[in-house]
Amino acid sequence: MYHVDLNCDMGEGYGKYTIGNDEEIMKYITSANIACGFHAGDPAIMRRTVQLAAEHDVGIGAHPGLPDLSGFGRRMMDISPKEAYDMVVYQIGALQGFVQAEGVTLQHVKPHGALFNMAAKQRELADAIAQAIKDVDSNLILFGLAGSELVHAGKNAGLNTASEVFSDRTYQEDGSLTSRRDPDALITDHEQAVSQVIRMIKEKKVMTLQEKDIDIDAQTVCIHGDGEHAVDFASYITQALNQSNIELRKIADFSSK
Amino acid sequence: MYHVDLNCDMGEGYGKYTIGNDEEIMKYITSANIACGFHAGDPAIMRRTVQLAAEHDVGIGAHPGLPDLSGFGRRMMDISPKEAYDMVVYQIGALQGFVQAEGVTLQHVKPHGALFNMAAKQRELADAIAQAIKDVDSNLILFGLAGSELVHAGKNAGLNTASEVFSDRTYQEDGSLTSRRDPDALITDHEQAVSQVIRMIKEKKVMTLQEKDIDIDAQTVCIHGDGEHAVDFASYITQALNQSNIELRKIADFSSK
Amino acid sequence: MYHVDLNCDMGEGYGKYTIGNDEEIMKYITSANIACGFHAGDPAIMRRTVQLAAEHDVGIGAHPGLPDLSGFGRRMMDISPKEAYDMVVYQIGALQGFVQAEGVTLQHVKPHGALFNMAAKQRELADAIAQAIKDVDSNLILFGLAGSELVHAGKNAGLNTASEVFSDRTYQEDGSLTSRRDPDALITDHEQAVSQVIRMIKEKKVMTLQEKDIDIDAQTVCIHGDGEHAVDFASYITQALNQSNIELRKIADFSSK
Amino acid sequence: MYHVDLNCDMGEGYGKYTIGNDEEIMKYITSANIACGFHAGDPAIMRRTVQLAAEHDVGIGAHPGLPDLSGFGRRMMDISPKEAYDMVVYQIGALQGFVQAEGVTLQHVKPHGALFNMAAKQRELADAIAQAIKDVDSNLILFGLAGSELVHAGKNAGLNTASEVFSDRTYQEDGSLTSRRDPDALITDHEQAVSQVIRMIKEKKVMTLQEKDIDIDAQTVCIHGDGEHAVDFASYITQALNQSNIELRKIADFSSK
Repeated sequence: MYHVDLNCDMGEGYGKYTIGNDEEIMKYITSANIACGFHAGDPAIMRRTVQLAAEHDVGIGAHPGLPDLSGFGRRMMDISPKEAYDMVVYQIGALQGFVQAEGVTLQHVKPHGALFNMAAKQRELADAIAQAIKDVDSNLILFGLAGSELVHAGKNAGLNTASEVFSDRTYQEDGSLTSRRDPDALITDHEQAVSQVIRMIKEKKVMTLQEKDIDIDAQTVCIHGDGEHAVDFASYITQALNQSNIELRKIADFSSK
Repeated sequence: MYHVDLNCDMGEGYGKYTIGNDEEIMKYITSANIACGFHAGDPAIMRRTVQLAAEHDVGIGAHPGLPDLSGFGRRMMDISPKEAYDMVVYQIGALQGFVQAEGVTLQHVKPHGALFNMAAKQRELADAIAQAIKDVDSNLILFGLAGSELVHAGKNAGLNTASEVFSDRTYQEDGSLTSRRDPDALITDHEQAVSQVIRMIKEKKVMTLQEKDIDIDAQTVCIHGDGEHAVDFASYITQALNQSNIELRKIADFSSK
Repeated sequence: MYHVDLNCDMGEGYGKYTIGNDEEIMKYITSANIACGFHAGDPAIMRRTVQLAAEHDVGIGAHPGLPDLSGFGRRMMDISPKEAYDMVVYQIGALQGFVQAEGVTLQHVKPHGALFNMAAKQRELADAIAQAIKDVDSNLILFGLAGSELVHAGKNAGLNTASEVFSDRTYQEDGSLTSRRDPDALITDHEQAVSQVIRMIKEKKVMTLQEKDIDIDAQTVCIHGDGEHAVDFASYITQALNQSNIELRKIADFSSK
Repeated sequence: MYHVDLNCDMGEGYGKYTIGNDEEIMKYITSANIACGFHAGDPAIMRRTVQLAAEHDVGIGAHPGLPDLSGFGRRMMDISPKEAYDMVVYQIGALQGFVQAEGVTLQHVKPHGALFNMAAKQRELADAIAQAIKDVDSNLILFGLAGSELVHAGKNAGLNTASEVFSDRTYQEDGSLTSRRDPDALITDHEQAVSQVIRMIKEKKVMTLQEKDIDIDAQTVCIHGDGEHAVDFASYITQALNQSNIELRKIADFSSK
């Protein structure tokens, strides 16, 4: 029997604005990455999303981003490692406020968007983020792209880490995701997307765009909560994994250092 | 022997902007109210201010404000009690992130500016703030204007509270501060300001603008960190209190429910 | 033959966030109130909305709001008349940038949300807003609630004004809108809403909740662009007005001092 | 007789925060670059700074920056040319609101900080900024680093441009400024700084750090308004230029296509 965690970004609205269908998606996933007010999310949404995750026994994670609401945290910014450290401490703390108020537990931290991508490649930034997490609560699990600097940084800092794979993205020979600017970046066929995931979990391999197999670690799978087929895909992938004897379990239940 | 806590708003810069002389003022006070990023303050400043307070063994407090950086949190906003609850949880949590990262302890919460003033008079808002504090950490001490709805709300919620008095403000018969729009609102003479404080501590009385004595509770005294005479006054009041056998002690050392 | 202007708030998204169906609604209205980045809207959305209005020959208006994106500009803030003046000048100017870049003309200004409501009742605030508009461009038409301080202020300042009525709101004896906290505030029946509008235009009367007729001036009618029935209602009211011999014309075509 | 324009960044406070001594510096310069609310500046400060410049007959310029108040617009952000276009249109427009309200004229546009630096090297970004300026008002003069992509883009778009030099920075062989990370980036000696400027104006040459002379165009000289010696240096450089028969004139008086 195999197992994997299924995570999704949640609570990404702001004020009157909403994105995605958190109530539906929450039924399928095992870990929720909750926006913390920098790239998306606000205090009211954070509280409700923590409550919603708790109701569904979904692992609660902080999803800190760059201070760029108008760009949804997706524009690379030239921040220093110290700035990254501080903004991660702030955002984890803010979410922890709601976690404590609801009497539940914070499970993990997954940086968002451009911060996630920069931390995958920039070692000093990755180290600063790992250190921030460790300093706030060394029991938190760090989510990073499988094989990335961020996962390495987490391990070096002595944190539990979760190697993350993407169902709907193609991979490059070096283990990185194909850039979204490349027309072949996305896998839009549901069946193909799930096949890739199942192989990553069972065989620990993924076929790259260059048609070469590479090794990959898959402890948590990221799915997307927005887009018109998001709920359909969430339903499809959970069924398919189940039928393939891959049990969905939240990362806290099987992560180790 | 008498004792009192001396508090001041700290960490009120933002990005490249600075206000006040935190390094000097921190030498005189016993409790620091640290801005949490809504009306002032940012992650880097919060970290440095927590470190500075810790170095001086000053009690660390969260100073949550309205989401109004351009108005410095001083403009009344018509927020709901639920909105107040959420923004207080968020801001306490954010500061707690730095407190945990530095391995120190959060002592108290003091709402800022318009939020402080509204909570002094609006019962539902006061209750929401007290509940937010209790839900995040029931050991936190709530600072409120002596005799205000906020202090009552804290007591009703079972929190430790600190009744706060102002050295440089005149009082009305109902125990409220004279509005800043009134020319007699401020006490600019240092000696007179300190005399008022000493009497509030020793006799638990204050002479109002209406020349009538009223009862007042003085567990913590607020001084200001900006203004050109701020450091001078901080030095003056600490000496004067000392000479009057009033010991300065951080509120955590003598507060009780 | 009667005529009236039909206006709607437009461009109220922000970054990745969208609200309403501007492309559809724009087909029915004659004037668009475009958010300017304080309560909603961002530069990219402002440009696209100006272009969309121009394509449909819809009158372009600035829709300045309070600096409260998280509250969508709907929370009353205690700003001074001078602050109101400055934020209105800024926001009109910002929209005018796009208007000039597209080679079109700015027609009107309608304050948004809490700023609109405060300006309906507070004379000094209304005067400051009227002065701001006049100072930037004295040809701009000021939209205000029919009978409000804002319309009076505009007339006193020598501006063209447009008295605005609401199709889906009930009225009080003093000409104000019934507060949204009152269960009878909204008219949800489309037929009833349109009948009220037609009577306001043809007879210059409206029946108040107190069942007393009052005089009312109706030069522009506000409809809403969000909500699931928004497009349906826009289609319904334009047809109904047309069948009642009320021609829809943009306010610039018939407004006068 | 030679002439040159002397420009300085102005109005860089925000809300309660202030930076620099605009009132003093304004006496010495001929052109003011006024922050527009994205990296610094707010509506009240913009109005006052436009008024102050007008009182001193100083050329008024928009100083648009990246949407990064916490980083003062100095952190590179990976924005698209279209995003740059929109944020420049918005910010010029916003300042123009105050310029119109005060009955004066907008003279120029100078991008700020990271936007200025990116536009010096990235051709598409430079083109987008030049196009934005041209679309809003083709009479505006574009300030860019001498020899940069931004100046080229302005010329290609048919704008008047002003080649800008820095008094207190050293140059590289390719005409770029030495990076601030290099210990030799700054010229702190006032006399040396002014000598470099005078030579750039009279001989159109500058000695680079590599001890090689290069050609340079100097139509406007940038000085800094913050820092403890800012006012002293402003006084010193204006006297020195005057004594060297270099007349200070605002760029609008001598710029041409």
